[in-house]
Amino acid sequence: MIALADVQAAAERLEGVARRTPVVRMGPHVWLKAENLQRTGAFKFRGAFNAIALLTDAHGVATVSSGNHAQAVALAARLHALPVTVLMPDDAPDSKREATQELGAEIIAFDRYGEDRDDLLRALVAERGLAPVHPYDDDAVMAGQGTVALELLAQVPEIETLVVPVGGGGLISGCATVAAAAGVRVVGVEPEAGDDTRRSLAAGRRVAIDVPRTIADGQQTPTPGELTFPVVLRHVAEIVTVSDEEIIAAMRFAHEELEHVLEPSGASALAAVMQGRVGGGVLGVVLTGGNVDAERYADLTRPLDW
Amino acid sequence: MIALADVQAAAERLEGVARRTPVVRMGPHVWLKAENLQRTGAFKFRGAFNAIALLTDAHGVATVSSGNHAQAVALAARLHALPVTVLMPDDAPDSKREATQELGAEIIAFDRYGEDRDDLLRALVAERGLAPVHPYDDDAVMAGQGTVALELLAQVPEIETLVVPVGGGGLISGCATVAAAAGVRVVGVEPEAGDDTRRSLAAGRRVAIDVPRTIADGQQTPTPGELTFPVVLRHVAEIVTVSDEEIIAAMRFAHEELEHVLEPSGASALAAVMQGRVGGGVLGVVLTGGNVDAERYADLTRPLDW
Repeated sequence: MIALADVQAAAERLEGVARRTPVVRMGPHVWLKAENLQRTGAFKFRGAFNAIALLTDAHGVATVSSGNHAQAVALAARLHALPVTVLMPDDAPDSKREATQELGAEIIAFDRYGEDRDDLLRALVAERGLAPVHPYDDDAVMAGQGTVALELLAQVPEIETLVVPVGGGGLISGCATVAAAAGVRVVGVEPEAGDDTRRSLAAGRRVAIDVPRTIADGQQTPTPGELTFPVVLRHVAEIVTVSDEEIIAAMRFAHEELEHVLEPSGASALAAVMQGRVGGGVLGVVLTGGNVDAERYADLTRPLDW
Repeated sequence: MIALADVQAAAERLEGVARRTPVVRMGPHVWLKAENLQRTGAFKFRGAFNAIALLTDAHGVATVSSGNHAQAVALAARLHALPVTVLMPDDAPDSKREATQELGAEIIAFDRYGEDRDDLLRALVAERGLAPVHPYDDDAVMAGQGTVALELLAQVPEIETLVVPVGGGGLISGCATVAAAAGVRVVGVEPEAGDDTRRSLAAGRRVAIDVPRTIADGQQTPTPGELTFPVVLRHVAEIVTVSDEEIIAAMRFAHEELEHVLEPSGASALAAVMQGRVGGGVLGVVLTGGNVDAERYADLTRPLDW
């Protein structure tokens, strides 16, 4: 498993490259870490850059992603002067596909509900001799994402519980590694329809579900990662869930009260806190990203009485 | 994974059947749970009885064990009027083989260093139509062993850290399930040569080692259980190790100062505490068993200046 030292080393690599994102205070006991303001609009840049920085002898990189990780890898590879190929679901939001192409990546579309993404990535990597940068099941990616918690706990040392959205588990495994060393509790948040990690935690083994249908497209993984799950099992206190409606309410609140644009996955931890599902004293909540098509964003956040 | 309720249900089944073993105070902050005084001389009776009590339609039971679990299953099956077949390593201590035979079990010997015990058990069970009672990788066995912690924490509620020997992980997974619910820390103890669980905890996955050579014959498992390991990963704070010499020193101390006869595995947690390897406030230490041939016991505990 990754250790605190891996995250600390990642933080050194990211110094002057990743943004030290601001913390927004929301009430006396809740602090929000605005990773929607990270480069490429999501925390994913941290893990992607750390993983690519650790590559030796790579002639190019490849990944599979619904969007945020794709942009992160595209930018991180460009900063290392490496070409990138990205496998992307054919129903990925336009804004994410276009942003990834603009960063110089070649995109290959696949059917999210039909084909196994990890198999596709393995085949692509083997065929073209590329270095894979998995969206979450990679120690260097996990360590990079953990710098979110390292930064947040330095910015707000009084945090007692960290609240983190969970997809494949890259962000929460890195953050929980930091939090455990600091004696801070970690609560994960999944969409109701995509509670594979909550189920896996109860079972003590990785449980697979059908690809969940939820607006939180960054949290549609059907099972926790092979490398991320042991860290979750060891260091995450609890997983709570939120409905799509609760996520939308959190997006509206972020827009109206905080002036932050969040994508659905990026608002799920905030939604859990707004619903009173997370106890544990002073809370640090990760807003993971803000990449969402303008039209879809308007649809989602439009007041109900329109 | 098993839950506290499973251990509580096991405790009800064991009421009036298993002994409520005494607790010995060793200094102001250390309490010893004397499972060497349990029926058949080890905690193993708890898990075996609970597992057999939960069988329906069984015509007989089978297990594989170096000794203590064998006697436990033999007695528990006799109390349920069921025949027992036991696969036992051909180098098992005489006292354990004889005690198991006296309880009515049929013994089949195998080579501990050559044959896979789980494969042998599966074959025997299939061939004879018996119900298997695995020594540790069985939810009912784990829940039964957990009653040790349930009892100890009721006897000494001020305990802050539980110190438990680790073999396959049945005892510690049951005890840690109880301890986690009570907010009590759990530290496991392995022989230095048999630190497969310590390694697995660091790796986040089950690591296998060669069958370890150690005097602690109850702790010679080469890898943690498939069912026990997730519980260890989630609920055990730390694994520490002790040398065979340190185990012998603990056996001598128990004999001379406490008037308790312990087998090597039964003394390993005490050895860790005597060596100062376990912090964490008021300690509850499980003495797991006392089954050892008289001659071997005399050899091991003889003062060094003889």
